[in-house]
Amino acid sequence: MKLLRVGTAGAERPALLDQDGTLRDLSGLVPDIDGDLLADEGALGRIRAAAAGGELPVIDGAAGTRVGPPLARIGKIVCIGLNYHDHAAETGAAIPAEPIIFFKAPDTVVGPDDTVLVPRGSTKTDWEVELAVVIGRTARYLDSAEDGLAHVAGYAVAHDVSEREFQIERGGTWDKGKNCETFNPLGPWLVTADEVPDPQALDLKLWVNGELKQDGTTAEQIFPVGEVVRYVSQFMTLYPGDVINTGTPAGVAMGQPEPKPYLRSGDVVELEVSGLGRQRQELKEA
Amino acid sequence: MKLLRVGTAGAERPALLDQDGTLRDLSGLVPDIDGDLLADEGALGRIRAAAAGGELPVIDGAAGTRVGPPLARIGKIVCIGLNYHDHAAETGAAIPAEPIIFFKAPDTVVGPDDTVLVPRGSTKTDWEVELAVVIGRTARYLDSAEDGLAHVAGYAVAHDVSEREFQIERGGTWDKGKNCETFNPLGPWLVTADEVPDPQALDLKLWVNGELKQDGTTAEQIFPVGEVVRYVSQFMTLYPGDVINTGTPAGVAMGQPEPKPYLRSGDVVELEVSGLGRQRQELKEA
Repeated sequence: MKLLRVGTAGAERPALLDQDGTLRDLSGLVPDIDGDLLADEGALGRIRAAAAGGELPVIDGAAGTRVGPPLARIGKIVCIGLNYHDHAAETGAAIPAEPIIFFKAPDTVVGPDDTVLVPRGSTKTDWEVELAVVIGRTARYLDSAEDGLAHVAGYAVAHDVSEREFQIERGGTWDKGKNCETFNPLGPWLVTADEVPDPQALDLKLWVNGELKQDGTTAEQIFPVGEVVRYVSQFMTLYPGDVINTGTPAGVAMGQPEPKPYLRSGDVVELEVSGLGRQRQELKEA
Repeated sequence: MKLLRVGTAGAERPALLDQDGTLRDLSGLVPDIDGDLLADEGALGRIRAAAAGGELPVIDGAAGTRVGPPLARIGKIVCIGLNYHDHAAETGAAIPAEPIIFFKAPDTVVGPDDTVLVPRGSTKTDWEVELAVVIGRTARYLDSAEDGLAHVAGYAVAHDVSEREFQIERGGTWDKGKNCETFNPLGPWLVTADEVPDPQALDLKLWVNGELKQDGTTAEQIFPVGEVVRYVSQFMTLYPGDVINTGTPAGVAMGQPEPKPYLRSGDVVELEVSGLGRQRQELKEA
């Protein structure tokens, strides 16, 4: 299923994009799309049954509807750094011996086509297309990558917007350059795991002003999705509605020759992951 | 006012500790103690008026009641690293030129007297008594430390439990050693800012098995509370109900001679900040 949330920011209602591409209203069936829903097999089953039975009302005038982030009440966003062979190489970093973890706050999440703000004083705002993993079951000290995958409810496109000066040159951890407002566009859809048979066979692409900048595949991930979930669960408990941004492939601005083409107000970024939909953001000044 | 939340985990109700030390029920007046309440001057005023008028019902049998964390629905927990002169010295680190930022996930928060779990595989679980700052107004690109202080709703005791191997020796950012389950006891009270006239004049103490280990004062903070809020607001937006853990003074296990006395199952940690109350946790294995 492709689950999403449509409407004005803060007042989205849950919806389903059916196999014909028709947007259908879920608000009569479930209150929202969040960790509680993803952990509730019964509720997910009722959505499936209602969709199959053609019982879900069509959302009229859907063409002009804003799409919000496909997940409400995110608990935490765990991010994996340098998780693609080619991206580690372009940044001059060694291949990590084990996953690098940093955080984004859930309040950085916006819809897939919402405005992204270049922070005040920023000269190094950068892009990163990523595969986001949404947790569906509490994951604590998991034993295997297979078990890790079994705790995934679904997948989405994430844009891990990053300010490189704040991240690297201002002391402390990467978190300082990862948590500016609007820095985590998510969606358009939360695609349930049953429709993503192999998360290591997804193409990721990102364009800036129409020019292809990133063109990667999750086959290049150093630590694949199931292993990431297993690994993270050794250090913290993952709960339904938590998100893991699994890293970005090569092609970010930081990896380009000088002068590096960092983002400025007016730029347009588009990104997609195969099967998970497409985002488009215009940059503005904070 | 001393605001708190009492009851079993996940089912706490809001309460007030009045000036006579009597626990009074707020659940008839406000749904919970969270960012929405702290941003609502009207609701806070109604609590003050009801308390002054003696209208709040006493909670019977309060002596045996569990105290939960004094804040629900925390948005994010921003932590400041190496923010005391004496702690930076004991860890062998240079005095930071600007605040070091890392994160704890809100799901690490437990009540002040709840069990703290030593993570599986941990040999370096450490203690850190801290002054926690609770945000009451949205803070974004603030101009001054004075303005920073004006965005603080109140203060609490925080225990920033830390696993040093995970934090420092396992690659990536400090977050890996800061987010194990139960790693952020908070409370007992959220003391409103009007009752803390000078947050730079608070004593912090921590004992392990009755032995005093940390004995510091917020006067030793490298970056004081108002400046911390101003600084953080340049990199991310702070919202009502966000928390900042403002760093720990000297005396952590990491700073002791070998063999360093890291925490083990069965140890008891007690900590307090002057005027903000006292915590007591027993360590158990995860």
